[in-house]
Amino acid sequence: MKKTRIGIVGATGYVGMELLRLLILHRQFEITTLVSQSFVGQRFSDIYPAFRGLIDQTLSELSIEQLANECDLVVTALPHGVSSKVVPQLLDAGLKVLDHSGDFRYRKLEVYESAYNLSHPEPELLTEAIYGLPEIYRDQLAAARLAANPGCYPTCSILGLLPLLKNNLIDTNSIIIDAYSGISGAGRKADLAFSFCEAQDNIRPYGVIGHRHTSEIEQEAGLLAGLEEAPAISFTPHLAPIKRGMLATIYAKIKPEAAQTDLTEIYDQAYASETFVRLMPQGQMPETKNVSYTNFADISWAYDKRTGLVKVMSAIDNLGKGASGQALQTINIMCGLPEDTGLLAAGGTI
Amino acid sequence: MKKTRIGIVGATGYVGMELLRLLILHRQFEITTLVSQSFVGQRFSDIYPAFRGLIDQTLSELSIEQLANECDLVVTALPHGVSSKVVPQLLDAGLKVLDHSGDFRYRKLEVYESAYNLSHPEPELLTEAIYGLPEIYRDQLAAARLAANPGCYPTCSILGLLPLLKNNLIDTNSIIIDAYSGISGAGRKADLAFSFCEAQDNIRPYGVIGHRHTSEIEQEAGLLAGLEEAPAISFTPHLAPIKRGMLATIYAKIKPEAAQTDLTEIYDQAYASETFVRLMPQGQMPETKNVSYTNFADISWAYDKRTGLVKVMSAIDNLGKGASGQALQTINIMCGLPEDTGLLAAGGTI
Amino acid sequence: MKKTRIGIVGATGYVGMELLRLLILHRQFEITTLVSQSFVGQRFSDIYPAFRGLIDQTLSELSIEQLANECDLVVTALPHGVSSKVVPQLLDAGLKVLDHSGDFRYRKLEVYESAYNLSHPEPELLTEAIYGLPEIYRDQLAAARLAANPGCYPTCSILGLLPLLKNNLIDTNSIIIDAYSGISGAGRKADLAFSFCEAQDNIRPYGVIGHRHTSEIEQEAGLLAGLEEAPAISFTPHLAPIKRGMLATIYAKIKPEAAQTDLTEIYDQAYASETFVRLMPQGQMPETKNVSYTNFADISWAYDKRTGLVKVMSAIDNLGKGASGQALQTINIMCGLPEDTGLLAAGGTI
Amino acid sequence: MKKTRIGIVGATGYVGMELLRLLILHRQFEITTLVSQSFVGQRFSDIYPAFRGLIDQTLSELSIEQLANECDLVVTALPHGVSSKVVPQLLDAGLKVLDHSGDFRYRKLEVYESAYNLSHPEPELLTEAIYGLPEIYRDQLAAARLAANPGCYPTCSILGLLPLLKNNLIDTNSIIIDAYSGISGAGRKADLAFSFCEAQDNIRPYGVIGHRHTSEIEQEAGLLAGLEEAPAISFTPHLAPIKRGMLATIYAKIKPEAAQTDLTEIYDQAYASETFVRLMPQGQMPETKNVSYTNFADISWAYDKRTGLVKVMSAIDNLGKGASGQALQTINIMCGLPEDTGLLAAGGTI
Repeated sequence: MKKTRIGIVGATGYVGMELLRLLILHRQFEITTLVSQSFVGQRFSDIYPAFRGLIDQTLSELSIEQLANECDLVVTALPHGVSSKVVPQLLDAGLKVLDHSGDFRYRKLEVYESAYNLSHPEPELLTEAIYGLPEIYRDQLAAARLAANPGCYPTCSILGLLPLLKNNLIDTNSIIIDAYSGISGAGRKADLAFSFCEAQDNIRPYGVIGHRHTSEIEQEAGLLAGLEEAPAISFTPHLAPIKRGMLATIYAKIKPEAAQTDLTEIYDQAYASETFVRLMPQGQMPETKNVSYTNFADISWAYDKRTGLVKVMSAIDNLGKGASGQALQTINIMCGLPEDTGLLAAGGTI
Repeated sequence: MKKTRIGIVGATGYVGMELLRLLILHRQFEITTLVSQSFVGQRFSDIYPAFRGLIDQTLSELSIEQLANECDLVVTALPHGVSSKVVPQLLDAGLKVLDHSGDFRYRKLEVYESAYNLSHPEPELLTEAIYGLPEIYRDQLAAARLAANPGCYPTCSILGLLPLLKNNLIDTNSIIIDAYSGISGAGRKADLAFSFCEAQDNIRPYGVIGHRHTSEIEQEAGLLAGLEEAPAISFTPHLAPIKRGMLATIYAKIKPEAAQTDLTEIYDQAYASETFVRLMPQGQMPETKNVSYTNFADISWAYDKRTGLVKVMSAIDNLGKGASGQALQTINIMCGLPEDTGLLAAGGTI
Repeated sequence: MKKTRIGIVGATGYVGMELLRLLILHRQFEITTLVSQSFVGQRFSDIYPAFRGLIDQTLSELSIEQLANECDLVVTALPHGVSSKVVPQLLDAGLKVLDHSGDFRYRKLEVYESAYNLSHPEPELLTEAIYGLPEIYRDQLAAARLAANPGCYPTCSILGLLPLLKNNLIDTNSIIIDAYSGISGAGRKADLAFSFCEAQDNIRPYGVIGHRHTSEIEQEAGLLAGLEEAPAISFTPHLAPIKRGMLATIYAKIKPEAAQTDLTEIYDQAYASETFVRLMPQGQMPETKNVSYTNFADISWAYDKRTGLVKVMSAIDNLGKGASGQALQTINIMCGLPEDTGLLAAGGTI
Repeated sequence: MKKTRIGIVGATGYVGMELLRLLILHRQFEITTLVSQSFVGQRFSDIYPAFRGLIDQTLSELSIEQLANECDLVVTALPHGVSSKVVPQLLDAGLKVLDHSGDFRYRKLEVYESAYNLSHPEPELLTEAIYGLPEIYRDQLAAARLAANPGCYPTCSILGLLPLLKNNLIDTNSIIIDAYSGISGAGRKADLAFSFCEAQDNIRPYGVIGHRHTSEIEQEAGLLAGLEEAPAISFTPHLAPIKRGMLATIYAKIKPEAAQTDLTEIYDQAYASETFVRLMPQGQMPETKNVSYTNFADISWAYDKRTGLVKVMSAIDNLGKGASGQALQTINIMCGLPEDTGLLAAGGTI
């Protein structure tokens, strides 16, 4: 079988690196082109010695022409505001694209521009791009030319809420999401705040008002609930001293008329045929270690009748289902492959 | 000046150890008696080599008579259900007692018995015992014979909520507390779930429905708000891979009539004269590292007008203000000393 | 192609778990039987929730008959002293065996009995068993009925020293090995010393005189150097607060007549055709993160002419090349498969 | 009693911060002046929020005149090459100085210039400066105008070797020092290599040939042994994922004529009257957690008659006895105070 040729633009960030880690085990994709502006001419394994003997390809500078010649599909792991300029050129060159930035995740231009404080050079692509969450948009992704890989917090949150929202069981204006992320979410960079000595043995909130992912969560929550207007959701991110992993604890008021609903059935039905969403057995809780280095989302829920709240606990690897694992799941779909190709692995475990 | 003689029963648990760490720098207290049933006859520094040359006292078995002879005040760091039997004997022997268990924290017997699934051998002491949170009960503690050291989660949560509750600004039935604790909260014990390999690089929820501290938080929240009936509060504890530290992120609906209240003033007033509560400057967030190894609580808040929620972030050291630091603050008060004696230290920092 | 049927006895320890993690990606082996005395009747994924949906097989008790019926090869991850009793029965039942304990690693009975303070029930098997270090014993392993998987410290140390020893370049009585291991080396167990709170933020030596692995290192060093008598080697293990990973820093006196030898050539020649030994490029040092979750050994060396010492730095994953990765490499060989089958993966990286 | 007025130049690095943490508890010193070029005009507690309410002093720029007016003694925590220019001015202004850099640690100009690749603007001060290791130079420090705070690795190593060297028991050319440091040793800075994601779960060697501290160790070892020429010592530093702490494992050949010496007596005698060196009881090993946040050095040794080597294990906090604790011990001496003033505290423990 002819392999699909994959290029990665922004290969040396953590998202690119993790995608490459996964692709080593993928037999239907061929990595043809690795672009990294900062490290042109060096080998990928010079930057990440863990990959010596596995991915020793040389990093090249961004050339749309080269990518067009060498690839069938390109994954762009670029900063927002940069993706919106590069992706249209890749599409024009006939390539399929999965973009990891926030630049194509929004349906409404004004929400994007407000969240990212940027104007969008190609707003019509917001209409074309498909939000790359296969558990919702699998069918559209199969036909997509452009997929927008979701944010890590939105993936973690939306998967936790999906069965409740689709079945109209909760007050959408009561949703509170309290989430903790591993530090790799901040990307690969020298920054005192993320240095070992400053970040180890520490937990802390950040972005408590107005974090960008709020609007992304609200958009998808509103769509799932069939609302015209996105609900107002409270979202608070925190950092924990783990390299990878994300845990969202989500609170929502069960609607009075839904108080007797069998949530077990609701969750089971929603995810019965999903490979990468694992509902925890009774009495077990999601733990980030169980999903780290994987594409799984582990989810549990509990209804507290004293307060009328349902609590949902959702754990992913922020670089796995929250970034590169999900990207691979989506490009598998975009390329007509079984979506679990290369993804059925146990993670970091201990 | 004659020093007050202090005994510790349960000296070799983490709470006892941390109290001893603090007492080394305390010049008005003399540690006379260290009781540890498991290590009778060994020196404290045999169990904790960090204390060699500092606390080499021999551990003795529990003897009410010996404690009565050697001490003025005894701190009991015993399991619940054990404290309720030992403390009355200490009181009968004429000693002042600060108890760290849950056995004397409750005003209502039935709440205790339901939360701890135990009957109480001396329920009348529930009436006498003062809840050892100096920021609320300072005056009563000064005259108390028996103080009940609060739980770590209740301390962290109640300090965060206090200004809002006292000023009647929030819907008490809307309170949601999402909290993360360091692993020392589980105590000093061999347990696979808390082994390094299982707990490192991992975050996880536990006790999501019905954690004991819920009722303790509800009791104090109700009292602060002047309610006859304690409110129903949603509380979810989690574990983070830090030895010490606790962060509570608290959500509550601002009452419509309070929407214009100047929360800055409310918080400033509530804590203007408190040494151990530090309100963060604008734009800074509490971080557990800043309070670890100290008795400080660092608190910040934000009002999100989109959702009508106030978010409060409160950080303590679960062994500091959440246990032994607070114990020392309280026994300072019980013994007529300035309550910051021995407690004004910068913590673990980096 | 008919798959080789593999059984694992002691499947729920960390060595068994890691082997299962690797086998998920292995297409020529079929896991037929998982034995765990402690968890009979439970599913493997009940013990390790990270494996839900991947390995949900039920754990069974030890039955030689069942293993004989269901397997072609059995990996035993049992305590020393237990393996020596179980392995002979498996061999008698016609199975190939790779044993992970120390029971079959020694050529001389008296060295084993002294190191492990045990008598050996089947000493003649010491003659038959092949030491499972493919970089030395590849050919014998291909024909072996019984392989003895090496210890983690010996693997790390011997791979570092092999080129020097085989070429007779160092004074074998001058060898000093200073090694640090991740805490998973202590196994999966509840033990206060390995609890998160006691082990985090801490490094410490242990077993400074007479650690068992000393004699195993000495045996293989002596054989590589062609000595009749094993040399006396100084070996000091330490613990570092990492789950996985091992770094040995090795010191040896270069023989005067070898002072001019080109060590680069010596190392390059020794490992030119080895997939799993990676010599670091000039100026780079082995780091445990680069080999964690893999079967690689990363090795570097430096000659210090001031002291006449060569320093060798060797890094492996104690559960990878130090245990389960190496086990898989060896059973690949024992089963006639390419020895890298299922092992060419990038590791934990970040 | 009139307090001694202390200034710190370079107050916001980790060494300055740790010194301030210690000084909070010190009653005979008054912190008058904090200099930090990078943060002029900000409060110290803006940079380190852990110090809010404890040290809120404003940081000023470097002014010799101001320091001369406000201080009796100045601690300089500046980069090497900068100290050598600033310190002479402070001395000229009549101040006592403890300098933390490498600029005044060497007796021989050429050794300094070779190790630091710098020329020295005031080489005559090398003769005057006293090496600030109180266990050796206590008497000279009491009269010193300028003390050179030792490096962390030299402190850890020399304290471990001192009894052997002073008693002439080991072959000084056989010494091998294998040491691991916490990451704070690299200082407070944004650097990808020391970021959480790159440094966590990792151990690695660095500076394996020619680390600067080698020559400092050799100088003091030679002086202790009474040698004219410093011996050639093999020293290899490594990084471990701990914020603080340092463990040196030291190997040396016992001289044949010393094989029967009672090392217990040798060590006991050497350190009988030292407060900050703690010899471990039989069977216990130094662990970095036991000394972290303290000025203690915990030391153990073992003689291996098979190899003729003595192994010494020495643990300190690289910011404690390896930097700021030692600085405080020394300035106590320089100011005529008991040298343990402000230093008798138990450390981070758990």
